[in-house]
Amino acid sequence: MMSHQDAGPSPALLMDALGAHVRTAALKGAIELDLFTAIAAGNETVAELAGACGASERGIRILCDYLVILGFLTKDERRHYRLTADSAAFLDRRSPLYLGGVTEFVLSPMVMEAHRDIAAAVRKGGTVLPDEGTIAPEHPVWVRFARGMAPLMRLSAQLMANIVEVPGGRPVRVLDVAAGHGVFGITLAQRHPSVEVVALDWPAVLEVARENAEAAGVAERWRPLRGSAFDEPFGEGYDMVLLTNFLHHFDVPTCEALLRKARAALSEGGRAITVEMVPNEDRVSPPGAASFAMTMLVQTSRGDAYTEAELGAMFGRAGFSRTEFHPLPSTRQELAISYR
Amino acid sequence: MMSHQDAGPSPALLMDALGAHVRTAALKGAIELDLFTAIAAGNETVAELAGACGASERGIRILCDYLVILGFLTKDERRHYRLTADSAAFLDRRSPLYLGGVTEFVLSPMVMEAHRDIAAAVRKGGTVLPDEGTIAPEHPVWVRFARGMAPLMRLSAQLMANIVEVPGGRPVRVLDVAAGHGVFGITLAQRHPSVEVVALDWPAVLEVARENAEAAGVAERWRPLRGSAFDEPFGEGYDMVLLTNFLHHFDVPTCEALLRKARAALSEGGRAITVEMVPNEDRVSPPGAASFAMTMLVQTSRGDAYTEAELGAMFGRAGFSRTEFHPLPSTRQELAISYR
Repeated sequence: MMSHQDAGPSPALLMDALGAHVRTAALKGAIELDLFTAIAAGNETVAELAGACGASERGIRILCDYLVILGFLTKDERRHYRLTADSAAFLDRRSPLYLGGVTEFVLSPMVMEAHRDIAAAVRKGGTVLPDEGTIAPEHPVWVRFARGMAPLMRLSAQLMANIVEVPGGRPVRVLDVAAGHGVFGITLAQRHPSVEVVALDWPAVLEVARENAEAAGVAERWRPLRGSAFDEPFGEGYDMVLLTNFLHHFDVPTCEALLRKARAALSEGGRAITVEMVPNEDRVSPPGAASFAMTMLVQTSRGDAYTEAELGAMFGRAGFSRTEFHPLPSTRQELAISYR
Repeated sequence: MMSHQDAGPSPALLMDALGAHVRTAALKGAIELDLFTAIAAGNETVAELAGACGASERGIRILCDYLVILGFLTKDERRHYRLTADSAAFLDRRSPLYLGGVTEFVLSPMVMEAHRDIAAAVRKGGTVLPDEGTIAPEHPVWVRFARGMAPLMRLSAQLMANIVEVPGGRPVRVLDVAAGHGVFGITLAQRHPSVEVVALDWPAVLEVARENAEAAGVAERWRPLRGSAFDEPFGEGYDMVLLTNFLHHFDVPTCEALLRKARAALSEGGRAITVEMVPNEDRVSPPGAASFAMTMLVQTSRGDAYTEAELGAMFGRAGFSRTEFHPLPSTRQELAISYR
C-alpha cells in the first residue's frame, strides 16, 4: 500500500513558492531589528541577542533558526549564531558594503502594492498602479531608490568601470542619464581624473546624487542637469552617455527615440554605456535577469527585460554602428557598449 | 583590476530573499487566472493563453516565463508552454489532487497580516494579531483552513493510514481532535469499515468536515462533537485519539494537559496518533518542518514546531508508555504513535 506514493507528484515546490513571502518578511524583520549588526558585535546566543535587539528570546530563537535555514547565519552545536561571509559583508550596518537600505526601495509600500494583485496586472498587461506606475514624472519612489540602491549599484558600477576604457590626456565628458544615486558616473569620475560628469534626473533625486558625488570627492567634476531624460536637451559633444537601469522601463519605440537623442549628443568616437538586466534569448535564463520582466510588468505600463538581440537591434535602428556585451559577474546585470 | 571581485562576497542570496515575495504573488496570480487549467486544456502559446484567461499577451508572456523560471512550467523552442508533472497534478483545477485552494488559507488576509511586521512579533515574542492570533475561539480562519487545506492534508492522511494498524473484527472508536476538514479520521474510516469517528471542532468548521465525510461515503460512521478541545469532555473508551496539526499551536504545559485528557479518553491498548511538523534536534533541518516555527511565531502566542525529543517527553509526562515516530515522505510532516 505504500509504494504507489514513492514516484508520485510532490507538492513541495508549490508549498515552497506559496511560503516564499515569509523569507522576504523575515529578512526585512531581521534588518529592522539590526540583528546582523548585533551578531557581528559579538552577541551569539539567544539571550545575548534578545538583550542586544530589545526582543524576546522566543522571537530571536525562531528568527535566527529561520535565517540559518535560509543561509544567512550559521549555528554551531552550542547554539551560537554567526554571520556567513556574505551576511558580514552586506548586512552588518558597520560594513562599507552594507545593503540593508535596499529594502527602502525594493520593499517600499509602492513596490509591494504593485505586486499585490498580479492577476490584475496580467489581465491589463501592465501595472495597476496609478499614473503609469513608477515612471510617473518626479515620482518620489526614485528618491527611495537613489538612497536605498546606491550600495548595491556600487558593485555593478565597479565592474562596469573595470571594463569601460577611458582615454587619458584630455577631458572626458560623460552624460549620466537618469542618474538616480549617480553612482555609475561618480565611479567613472573616481577612477579617472579626466572624467567630467553631467548627471540628469529629477531635482529631488539629484540631491541624493550630489551627496554621493561630494562623499566620493568628485563634486568639482560633477554637475546636475535637472529634468526629464525625454524632454530636457542633452547638449552635445559627450564622449559617453550612460544609460544604466533605465531602458527597461519603456517600450521599444520609446527606447529608440531616447537612443537617437543619446547618439546625437555623442561626439565622434563616442559610446553609449548601458547597464541592464539582459535575459538570454529563451527569456527564462539566467533566473535573476529573466525574472526582472515580472518587475517591469507590475511596475510599468510597457517596460521589459530586453535580450541582447533586442537591445542590439534598438541601438542599430537608432544609428549606432555596433554594440558589444560584457557580463558583470555576481550581479544580475550586463554591460553593453554601443559605438556611435 | 578585475580579479579582486572574483572571490568576493555576493549579494545574490540577499537579493533572492528580498524578491522571494514575488514568487508567492505570481503563483497566486496564476492560480486566480486559472492559467494552469488553461494550459492543461491545450492552450500552449501566449496568444491562446491570453484568450483562454481573458488576459493581455504581454502579461501572459511575462507570467509564463516567470513560472518557467520557478519550475512550474516548461517552455520549448517554439515558445509553447506546458505543465510539469507536479503542476498537472496539483494546479490543474480538473485534477483530483488540485491544491489551488490552499491559497484561501495560507495566503488569507489574516495570515498575510500576521507576517506584515515580523520585527514586532520577534520583539513581542508572539503574534501581533489580536486575541491570541489564530487560536482564538471559533476563529473563522479555520473554516478557510478546513476548505483550503483538505486536499493537501489528504496526502498526509493517506501516508498516515498506510502506517497506522487498525484491528479488525470489532468496532474501532476514533476521536479526531480539532478535526478541521476531518480528513485524517475520514481517511481511516474509508480504509477500515470497522472505524467509527467522533470529530471534535468548532461548529462552523465541522460543517466542512461533514461535507467531506458525506463525499467520502463514511457519514454513517462519522459524527460531530461540537466545542473546544480543551473544554469539551472527550468521553472514554476510544481506541485512537487523533492529534493532527494541533499541538504546535500551544506551549508545552498546554499540550501536556491536553495529552493527559487524551490519554484518559483511551481504552486499554489505545494510541494517540499525532501528525506534526517535527524539526530535527538542531531546529534548522529539515527546512520545511524547521521553518514552521516561524509560522507559529507570527500566528500564535506560544506555539512551536516541536522536536521528537520534546514531543516524546510531553507524551511521557502525560503518562503514555512510549512514542514512536514515522516519516511521511514528500510532506513536511511526521507521524507519532504514542501508546497509552
